[in-house]
Amino acid sequence: MAHRIAFLGFVALAVCASLSLAAEPASLQDFCVADASGNTLMNGMACKNPAMVQASDFAFSGLHIPGNTSDAMGFRVTLVSMTQIPGLNTLGICLHQVDYAPWGIVPLHTHPRAIEILTVIEGSLEVGFVTSNPGNRHITKILKKGDVFVFPVGQNPGVITIANTVFGSKPDISTDLLAKAFQVDKSAVWQLQAKF
Amino acid sequence: MAHRIAFLGFVALAVCASLSLAAEPASLQDFCVADASGNTLMNGMACKNPAMVQASDFAFSGLHIPGNTSDAMGFRVTLVSMTQIPGLNTLGICLHQVDYAPWGIVPLHTHPRAIEILTVIEGSLEVGFVTSNPGNRHITKILKKGDVFVFPVGQNPGVITIANTVFGSKPDISTDLLAKAFQVDKSAVWQLQAKF
Amino acid sequence: MAHRIAFLGFVALAVCASLSLAAEPASLQDFCVADASGNTLMNGMACKNPAMVQASDFAFSGLHIPGNTSDAMGFRVTLVSMTQIPGLNTLGICLHQVDYAPWGIVPLHTHPRAIEILTVIEGSLEVGFVTSNPGNRHITKILKKGDVFVFPVGQNPGVITIANTVFGSKPDISTDLLAKAFQVDKSAVWQLQAKF
Amino acid sequence: MAHRIAFLGFVALAVCASLSLAAEPASLQDFCVADASGNTLMNGMACKNPAMVQASDFAFSGLHIPGNTSDAMGFRVTLVSMTQIPGLNTLGICLHQVDYAPWGIVPLHTHPRAIEILTVIEGSLEVGFVTSNPGNRHITKILKKGDVFVFPVGQNPGVITIANTVFGSKPDISTDLLAKAFQVDKSAVWQLQAKF
Amino acid sequence: MAHRIAFLGFVALAVCASLSLAAEPASLQDFCVADASGNTLMNGMACKNPAMVQASDFAFSGLHIPGNTSDAMGFRVTLVSMTQIPGLNTLGICLHQVDYAPWGIVPLHTHPRAIEILTVIEGSLEVGFVTSNPGNRHITKILKKGDVFVFPVGQNPGVITIANTVFGSKPDISTDLLAKAFQVDKSAVWQLQAKF
Amino acid sequence: MAHRIAFLGFVALAVCASLSLAAEPASLQDFCVADASGNTLMNGMACKNPAMVQASDFAFSGLHIPGNTSDAMGFRVTLVSMTQIPGLNTLGICLHQVDYAPWGIVPLHTHPRAIEILTVIEGSLEVGFVTSNPGNRHITKILKKGDVFVFPVGQNPGVITIANTVFGSKPDISTDLLAKAFQVDKSAVWQLQAKF
Repeated sequence: MAHRIAFLGFVALAVCASLSLAAEPASLQDFCVADASGNTLMNGMACKNPAMVQASDFAFSGLHIPGNTSDAMGFRVTLVSMTQIPGLNTLGICLHQVDYAPWGIVPLHTHPRAIEILTVIEGSLEVGFVTSNPGNRHITKILKKGDVFVFPVGQNPGVITIANTVFGSKPDISTDLLAKAFQVDKSAVWQLQAKF
Repeated sequence: MAHRIAFLGFVALAVCASLSLAAEPASLQDFCVADASGNTLMNGMACKNPAMVQASDFAFSGLHIPGNTSDAMGFRVTLVSMTQIPGLNTLGICLHQVDYAPWGIVPLHTHPRAIEILTVIEGSLEVGFVTSNPGNRHITKILKKGDVFVFPVGQNPGVITIANTVFGSKPDISTDLLAKAFQVDKSAVWQLQAKF
Repeated sequence: MAHRIAFLGFVALAVCASLSLAAEPASLQDFCVADASGNTLMNGMACKNPAMVQASDFAFSGLHIPGNTSDAMGFRVTLVSMTQIPGLNTLGICLHQVDYAPWGIVPLHTHPRAIEILTVIEGSLEVGFVTSNPGNRHITKILKKGDVFVFPVGQNPGVITIANTVFGSKPDISTDLLAKAFQVDKSAVWQLQAKF
Repeated sequence: MAHRIAFLGFVALAVCASLSLAAEPASLQDFCVADASGNTLMNGMACKNPAMVQASDFAFSGLHIPGNTSDAMGFRVTLVSMTQIPGLNTLGICLHQVDYAPWGIVPLHTHPRAIEILTVIEGSLEVGFVTSNPGNRHITKILKKGDVFVFPVGQNPGVITIANTVFGSKPDISTDLLAKAFQVDKSAVWQLQAKF
Repeated sequence: MAHRIAFLGFVALAVCASLSLAAEPASLQDFCVADASGNTLMNGMACKNPAMVQASDFAFSGLHIPGNTSDAMGFRVTLVSMTQIPGLNTLGICLHQVDYAPWGIVPLHTHPRAIEILTVIEGSLEVGFVTSNPGNRHITKILKKGDVFVFPVGQNPGVITIANTVFGSKPDISTDLLAKAFQVDKSAVWQLQAKF
Repeated sequence: MAHRIAFLGFVALAVCASLSLAAEPASLQDFCVADASGNTLMNGMACKNPAMVQASDFAFSGLHIPGNTSDAMGFRVTLVSMTQIPGLNTLGICLHQVDYAPWGIVPLHTHPRAIEILTVIEGSLEVGFVTSNPGNRHITKILKKGDVFVFPVGQNPGVITIANTVFGSKPDISTDLLAKAFQVDKSAVWQLQAKF
């Protein structure tokens, strides 16, 4: 079974904020395409002269090409962000495609201030996230071709204890997945899960 | 030639703002899934009790099914927003898929406060936008499978004169497309383009 | 009958955002007067040394002088924004005065992310705006001396189809006005209005 | 000599924030006209059903009528805000007209989070503001008909000591004005100014 | 050696956003004290009638009393947030005091969208945080009485892989601390650290 | 009786806004430590190269040392802000400690856009603030060791008349305090209070 998904439309609060930043030069211009020769400002890249902007500044090609998924975890991310599309500068949105080898995983991670909305282009995929203290609920689903799933941005300013979230979620995160993510054998994972 | 594109990741300033709104209940909870039985607040829907939230509140199925494109303009939009995925409430992002009949068009439009990032899943597509006064540049590109294009949110608080933008862009918007969008014959479009 | 109005207090979301940007140097200073010799930053102009700021940086003279309204459309805008008043830098507000010849018009336009509040100083004026899809209501009023009218910023992130909004509003925008704005004869306008 | 000014376009950071709040229902509607029969929300009034909105919800009449200026200070403010124009709800802007008796004053005041841009419709007027600690510069100007002046929003999060600002500004605020504002004789004002 | 610290002034982006929300009712009132009898809104609690507000709504007593630190981890947090001080509603700031038993720890945690600034009132304390991928630098310091330390809010919208951050930081997080936080013996920690 | 308090966690709307600004470089890095050799940007200081950042960039020592309180007003503020801790750049929060001589006062002041949350480390202290027009309520409390008090940010965009607030509050601000703050004898204060 081939696995293939595309992560669509990361958007981060930060980036949203930078969207409103973009608004001020907007009083002078329509967009703020990143000027590769310019400086990095606190809130993105400097703006390219609008008269020099081309359609290619808003475009990227290549998502039809599968990525190489032969690493330990069995996944490959193709980024389409400000580096690939200068016109994304200050817009607070980007697009990633992820290819998976069969049984490939993206290891447990967080992205503070980022929303992720994903759609499965090909194959199927198990996705999930864990809620914060004290519940640590594990919300999970198996997606198939044409399915969409959203990971809400972590909105809880309170404390999220890592050990409880990773090893004490309800229901448990699969021991297989944790063993692969932490590169230990299942017995070590069981030892940790037993405590939380 | 079959045409097929997916609009990925609309995000609007407004929605970004509502993202930070979501942050406050976030001091009490992790997300604000729309409560269909609740009221519409000024900044989105009321939040469902987090304990009642299910994985299905974050998911949608069906983008693998082509839409019916037999209308006058030859396109069909499949929306995936807060109505389809209650978990999108307050997150400021949504996802649309658009199917096109051969030579189908989406008529000229604006979306104030919305960024659009799009990727072509199948076929090819001509896209473009016009910059504001006084330049009214027409930035356009032909996209093929695997291409991505971003339409920046209109950032110019100044005046955008409709007649100059639609009929006086440089280069012109294709007479065919304008004739179809305004449902008039080409001579009427030429008459208008001649003035601007 | 002489017509004369003043547009008062444009304010754009963008500019409002830049207002909060201004807040950070505000931790060092009270205001951020534009430094004409400085660079344009992403969020406005660089700040002039506060010790060099004069009362004249916050002032403009000349709104008592009528503008020349002898162009095709019969209106003249006198801008009072950051260029005229450096102290408006980052404040997200400006002021415009518009003089009209009898039967003069400002052609159909949009200003994404801008609110407009206007008051009639002299004469009378018909004003209006069209709501977004699907309603496309045409909200219109005849104003006389001392009247105030606000044009809300376009807040709908969804799609606004230009043809339907301009030629299919309910009630119709006056054929005279459309003919003048698009510089075509009324029959061409009727042809367009008949379709929407 | 008659004195008459109009304060145009107060806008407050707060209101700017509420502007972006308005954006979320904006994903459902174009504006959020205050519903007088509705509740006050944390971020403004509830929204009236858009289908029930009339042009009159965006309009106000009466700025051509001079206000009565026979009070102790000799000024009269005519407010045009959300109460007078329900369509101003959430837009973060309002308009005030102020009539002055000869030598009338508006007593010393602050408006946290409000920008004020004013224009003189008739007569002349002395305006000014004092910068924060440690400088306490008094920036002042005499305006005549057709002049515009902007009071930047207080942007300094640091400390502003009232006694130093009012009685220790450089140059001094006129003793006449302070005596009238504090309703004491000039000798009392001199006593205070001597200390700062 | 007795250990005692106070966490001062958590502030979260979310809460900052809610601060600007607070601004809109601010156009009607000075503050939005939480009304315990009211509903929870999306952006905090409803506002108590300002005329009913008392000084006690802004106050809390008891930080001079040491907390009981006899739990497994050896720490006790005393919260001073909206629940303890209704006047903190919408202000986006709170204050926590933490008492430590000798060698007590607060287990590894994150707080998305929260800044933490802390000062040591009594005793000494080792603090630290790990930067995101790919560096995973471990920034750490031993604080003594009168020292202040700030934990910046996680600002990176990109991916933070948990295993690499916890077990692969440079330099390592102390094996003692990880063993206590994950409630396993040191050999299990060494096994994990060896992989990253 | 010795008096000693610490002001904890100033946070200003401005600074909150700059927090979200910080988020954009955050897409490239975790924090934006002020680069002393860099320029001041509109929204804070330029960012130091993250690889050069040290734990000391996030730390300050010395709050255990009492400040010298021998000035006219009898107080001494020890600032811990961006100048003392470069890592506070863009975070919108700082920490101040204030030492008081017996009967020392901090003169009447405002801090636009700043919240203040304070806790008494030693001794006791009377605190208070006055609400805006028209109420001008004087909300006051005597704090003792371990007490916390919050001063909400001035949220009212409307007018706050200084004379009414200072000399006409209900109940009055103590004549002793006003006499000391304005450096006049009590009879002068009584004269002013009698008018408001």
